[in-house]
Amino acid sequence: MTYCVGMLLREGLVMITDSRTNAGIDNINHFRKLHIFEKPGEVALALATSGNLSVTQSVVSLLTEGLPDPVTGNLETLLDSPSMFKAAQLVGRAIREVDRLDGQGLLKHGGSFDATILLGGQMRDRRLRLFMVYSAGNFIEATADTPFLQIGEHKYGKPVLDRAVTYDTELYEALKIGLISMDSTMRSNLAVGLPLDIAVLRRDAMQFELSHRIESGDPYFEDLRRRWSEALRAAHQAIPIPPYARRLSQSAN
Amino acid sequence: MTYCVGMLLREGLVMITDSRTNAGIDNINHFRKLHIFEKPGEVALALATSGNLSVTQSVVSLLTEGLPDPVTGNLETLLDSPSMFKAAQLVGRAIREVDRLDGQGLLKHGGSFDATILLGGQMRDRRLRLFMVYSAGNFIEATADTPFLQIGEHKYGKPVLDRAVTYDTELYEALKIGLISMDSTMRSNLAVGLPLDIAVLRRDAMQFELSHRIESGDPYFEDLRRRWSEALRAAHQAIPIPPYARRLSQSAN
Repeated sequence: MTYCVGMLLREGLVMITDSRTNAGIDNINHFRKLHIFEKPGEVALALATSGNLSVTQSVVSLLTEGLPDPVTGNLETLLDSPSMFKAAQLVGRAIREVDRLDGQGLLKHGGSFDATILLGGQMRDRRLRLFMVYSAGNFIEATADTPFLQIGEHKYGKPVLDRAVTYDTELYEALKIGLISMDSTMRSNLAVGLPLDIAVLRRDAMQFELSHRIESGDPYFEDLRRRWSEALRAAHQAIPIPPYARRLSQSAN
Repeated sequence: MTYCVGMLLREGLVMITDSRTNAGIDNINHFRKLHIFEKPGEVALALATSGNLSVTQSVVSLLTEGLPDPVTGNLETLLDSPSMFKAAQLVGRAIREVDRLDGQGLLKHGGSFDATILLGGQMRDRRLRLFMVYSAGNFIEATADTPFLQIGEHKYGKPVLDRAVTYDTELYEALKIGLISMDSTMRSNLAVGLPLDIAVLRRDAMQFELSHRIESGDPYFEDLRRRWSEALRAAHQAIPIPPYARRLSQSAN
């Protein structure tokens, strides 16, 4: 399983991914799901992947090595894309190319073709953008109204994002809330797990100011989990007991 | 959509259901999903239903009117069941009977046969028990290790239950946490909504001490939602900002 969240904020971009994969419940491994593509000063992109690992790894390889342009035949890589929109289209084309190569084989052997990818970043003199690209190669874009996009096991961690993240949330405040969202997900789904990969791109910087792996035992993340747990306990303990108690029961049906 | 939770606690049983149904996104109604079956002093049962409304309503009708015993042909109703285990079996048989009658027709018209039901309660001189009965008619039972069962849209509201509900949680404390769980679900999925139906059965009482509907505008529930929201905001604000900021970025991949 996987949980990744991307946030498009006034100040910049935050991406967080877990790294646990499972092929069946008895074959659990760690793979990087956050991929940075960068030419400092020119372009800074981050890709977060969920779905079938063979598919997403092939997609990342294609985007690195390049796909032939359908007209000119020239190889196009993600770092060569002239715009974020074209980059999202290229991710879609890479997904379709892997589907063309492996989709039937996967189906034949009882697998499914499944890849959802977040692509966020900025190119010089262009806007910071964040896209979610689906298995079909189509995509949607985050906006100021809906500044975060999630892929994978998204429900457990969504309530805290719904409440706390807006377009105007500060960059490292958003990173913190994203880590709380990741904590909620990890507690409810064992198939989402440490280490976590995080990346922060400040708007117009064209270079990631943070690209970091949070390992098991990380003092800040352990402290965050403990504080959040204690605060939640205090929060529900502070709410009064329901006043409905001990009314007469009513037979219904 | 639906969200229902049942909790089996040392002190007794708590059941909470929403009441929103939708046949498509443009046909939204309210139907009771919590059904009480009671002979005070003898038996007290609560049924919480999710799935296709025509299926679950037919199941409740069958359990009220009775299903023919496969051997004797006598009609058996839920209130006549000699044990909670037999009652759970009867719910399973009612689901299978509706599947036999309507399952093919539903499939033919693009619907699906879908019903998941929580059955909780106690009969005189017997144990308080809580079951989850599936569409196939099979069922599982809550235990002291896993004291709550959820049906319907369960993920948004699970983290708070995971953290706060144990077998030893007090009855009305558990009700309160269940309402917080319902609040989280309602915020993240508009298809789960008020009014809420709640029921509380104290162990060995053989009569519900609370069976109540929380309507829109209920002062306690509004206050709970506001307090929880404010406490969560205060909780994440109190956590320090991540210390990873402004490390050098690393180009990867």
